[in-house]
Amino acid sequence: MLSAVEHETVDARVSFQTEPSRYRHWRLSIAPPVATLAMDVAEDGGLADGYELKLNSYDLGVDIELYDAVQRLRFEHPEVRAVVLTSLKEKIFCAGANIRMLATSEHPAKVNFCKFTNETRTAIEDATACSGQAYLAALNGTASGGGYELALACEHIMLIDDRSSVVSLPELPLLGVLPGTGGLTRVTDKRHVRRDLADYFATKAEGVGGRKALAWRLVDEVVPRTAWDQTVAQRAAEFAARTSRPHGLAGGPGIALPPLDKTRTAEAIGYRHVFATLHRDRGLAEITVDGPRADPPADMARADAEFWPLAVTRELDDLILDLRTNEPELGTWTLRTEGDPARVLAYDRLLLASTDDWLASEITHYLKRTLKRLDVTSRSLVALIEPGGCFAGSLLELALAADRSYMLADSPAVIVLGEMNLGPLPMANGLTRLATRFYGDRDALEAAQKHAGDPLDATTAERLGLVTFAPDEIDWEDEVRIAIEERASFSPDALTGMEANYRFAGPETMETKIFGRLTAWQNWIFTRPNASGPDGALRKYGTGQRASFDRKRA
Amino acid sequence: MLSAVEHETVDARVSFQTEPSRYRHWRLSIAPPVATLAMDVAEDGGLADGYELKLNSYDLGVDIELYDAVQRLRFEHPEVRAVVLTSLKEKIFCAGANIRMLATSEHPAKVNFCKFTNETRTAIEDATACSGQAYLAALNGTASGGGYELALACEHIMLIDDRSSVVSLPELPLLGVLPGTGGLTRVTDKRHVRRDLADYFATKAEGVGGRKALAWRLVDEVVPRTAWDQTVAQRAAEFAARTSRPHGLAGGPGIALPPLDKTRTAEAIGYRHVFATLHRDRGLAEITVDGPRADPPADMARADAEFWPLAVTRELDDLILDLRTNEPELGTWTLRTEGDPARVLAYDRLLLASTDDWLASEITHYLKRTLKRLDVTSRSLVALIEPGGCFAGSLLELALAADRSYMLADSPAVIVLGEMNLGPLPMANGLTRLATRFYGDRDALEAAQKHAGDPLDATTAERLGLVTFAPDEIDWEDEVRIAIEERASFSPDALTGMEANYRFAGPETMETKIFGRLTAWQNWIFTRPNASGPDGALRKYGTGQRASFDRKRA
Repeated sequence: MLSAVEHETVDARVSFQTEPSRYRHWRLSIAPPVATLAMDVAEDGGLADGYELKLNSYDLGVDIELYDAVQRLRFEHPEVRAVVLTSLKEKIFCAGANIRMLATSEHPAKVNFCKFTNETRTAIEDATACSGQAYLAALNGTASGGGYELALACEHIMLIDDRSSVVSLPELPLLGVLPGTGGLTRVTDKRHVRRDLADYFATKAEGVGGRKALAWRLVDEVVPRTAWDQTVAQRAAEFAARTSRPHGLAGGPGIALPPLDKTRTAEAIGYRHVFATLHRDRGLAEITVDGPRADPPADMARADAEFWPLAVTRELDDLILDLRTNEPELGTWTLRTEGDPARVLAYDRLLLASTDDWLASEITHYLKRTLKRLDVTSRSLVALIEPGGCFAGSLLELALAADRSYMLADSPAVIVLGEMNLGPLPMANGLTRLATRFYGDRDALEAAQKHAGDPLDATTAERLGLVTFAPDEIDWEDEVRIAIEERASFSPDALTGMEANYRFAGPETMETKIFGRLTAWQNWIFTRPNASGPDGALRKYGTGQRASFDRKRA
Repeated sequence: MLSAVEHETVDARVSFQTEPSRYRHWRLSIAPPVATLAMDVAEDGGLADGYELKLNSYDLGVDIELYDAVQRLRFEHPEVRAVVLTSLKEKIFCAGANIRMLATSEHPAKVNFCKFTNETRTAIEDATACSGQAYLAALNGTASGGGYELALACEHIMLIDDRSSVVSLPELPLLGVLPGTGGLTRVTDKRHVRRDLADYFATKAEGVGGRKALAWRLVDEVVPRTAWDQTVAQRAAEFAARTSRPHGLAGGPGIALPPLDKTRTAEAIGYRHVFATLHRDRGLAEITVDGPRADPPADMARADAEFWPLAVTRELDDLILDLRTNEPELGTWTLRTEGDPARVLAYDRLLLASTDDWLASEITHYLKRTLKRLDVTSRSLVALIEPGGCFAGSLLELALAADRSYMLADSPAVIVLGEMNLGPLPMANGLTRLATRFYGDRDALEAAQKHAGDPLDATTAERLGLVTFAPDEIDWEDEVRIAIEERASFSPDALTGMEANYRFAGPETMETKIFGRLTAWQNWIFTRPNASGPDGALRKYGTGQRASFDRKRA
């Protein structure tokens, strides 16, 4: 039972669950093999009061719908092979993140918003690369700031040639912040714009259009207004024809993603397979993930949204987003599992054996993306491995993603390495979590891999370096309690910085550069008075007054 | 003539010039093939008032001496093949950066200090890797924080086993900041400490010693006190014997590095080959680098510190450090050259043809490090290429390092690509500046490379993508003026963030991760109230009061 007060709190929480019939800002239309996702932001549809979403500018709510659409296209519309991102507004594709929203947001909210939008843009790239759903940005008007960054996540960028529409990154000259949603990274690393031209471009508030935008590689083609509709349709058809998506297999009907069965109170979040208890006094969320309650079906033929790997991934995804956004003071998450390790491994085998099945592939990629979301989550992650748990294969990734793991010694608790730990679920750095863990220590990696399939007790798991500590029953409670209390006593900022560094040992990719280098610089800039102070550029924008800067370079 | 006030300002400037006889904090002793660099910080020898450098803690002044020693060992002591870093204090190797100094420093000063210490630590690694001067950390007492990070820059870490000496990274638990001088990166990426153990280590203020430090790879060996001196000597001799440094060639006497001939006023900085005019009203430093005034000698035999490539590199190095540290409000640096491109190329050829000459190799590596210093400098760099300039080969790197370049069209101005642009001077990302410029555009890279050796006029250079803009005489003055004025009008923080991203397109290395990801997170944390606010951990340390934290995770 929720009291009135609690109910109010509930209403203030951001929900990540939606569906196309409830969209306020996007229109999704499907004409196989092409889908069109058209932005038409409702000015009065902001998540919070105090700003109007003019010119297709967006806030978290707009992006939640975009994320939902990108997900549904993969699961509900396997027949779609190309997605056209465009706008229903005249002369404007998208003006980027709403500036007043940014200016009035607290720092953690800004950071969380940017992280989610970054994840959605990498999800677009993942759909293009891994699912053969190629995204095309059809810029029927100006794309500025985050609007152009959204286009950058697409495989192909078309800009209308109407003598006024441009692409631009005006964040630096107008707002004193960075194009931080991948903009500075994708321009050079994905589109191969020369760095000095990119510098000029990002300081020119009025943007670049026409032939220059093409010559500088900012867009892939510039299309006259008279040929616009036809060329967009033609290009989408071409991408649909040549995508990597297997034709025959993707032709079947998709599976529906019904609303999650979720219960949310101030103390707990529950789904069918995933549960979290919220301890505000201890800054702690205790998360438990249930393994499958039955053996997997013989094949994927009858799999739907109830299919355990998909259901548990959807729930975990929603839980991560809910806790991140709505519970910023719960700084530590413990991760437990309950169930039969053999069944987890059996489901994993079914997914990986179904190499020709589009749904098996989608589920594996979705799990991959959800685990990546965990990797970039600014919370301390502690895995607790106890008897009755099922840290095996795909669920063992939770322990491998954790900053630390504790496993009860002299007990029936086991972990099992499976095929899912050896390749299909890479981190953003391109390595498996296992390879990242043993980065530079090939012997240890090989020693662990040799035990794939073996139930490993705490002593063996510790010796192989697969868990951090293996206290026995006498020490368990104290050690775990102290670890959690200690974590809660540290500076939350320093923990975020430490974890963001340690979790990504070894090589970097465009994705890790966006979540690492670019994001960290953007976060720094967001905290500086030159941007967010009373006289900062972000706060002064639109007031007619100039920002005033401390000119010292740091 | 300096007024009294100006003179005071002059005195307050930090100087980077020193020499062993003037060291207050280090003792350098040479017993070929081994050198010993022993830390013995003078408590009252801080650069500023208000803190005491207890327990071998350091400030910028201590690190300036370390940098000087590392440089001199390469040039003045080619006979040295191993360097032992140790301490003359009892029970303590080094306690890291002085906390009170950090707590009382302004943000830009903190950032500048960390950048320089990072550069000195990568210089130690460069000496080991490129010069065969292997550094060994002989930790005869506890190495904590920056003290352990200094050890991490060494090839081999020995810790005394006296039941009390440990290595530790207590920044997070004690100060609410990161081990930001490479600590979080080198632990996993260089020493291959497992990330979960590294996590535990960096939250345990009391550190780790003895067998555990060895088992976790935090150190390479643990040595009983009774065997300490002998084992250190033996290990140094072993490293000296097996280093990559050519034995015969490195046996000759080194060359002395006399004090630079430098004139410094509030308006100008002058050396023999490098000049800077400081325009405070415009936030601008105009830098001119002179090419060689005569042809190179026939061989390296008579080269000394007057030898143009070495002299100009030393001056440029000092100028960068001076401007960075003492002139934070000069946010834009223009880069010009004057001289004969053919002579620059002739010197380059001499250096690169002298493949067996230790000095030629040292000079090339020093130029490489100095250009890397420019790459991580938080100032906008604008190259101005005019008639009479000598942007060729090694000096063309200045233009390639710049954020933008302007070249006067329809004029005798030329640039010339030389061998030095094609490999010997890589950036921290492992690529040449040319390859970084054309990242992902192999055709453009090859087209440019084909013109190596050709004097290229502005039109050709622009067409090949080697310069950003090529205005003619009518537009030149306005375009350059507007670019500089515009730069001065933008948020200095946003410029720093943009440049730090754009300058490092493509792959990352441990070095770029340290200057990028790690540094950006550290800078963010430094600005947050949880660290630097009145109740932040950095400010409360040593007061007996607990820091108070905003618990929201961002």
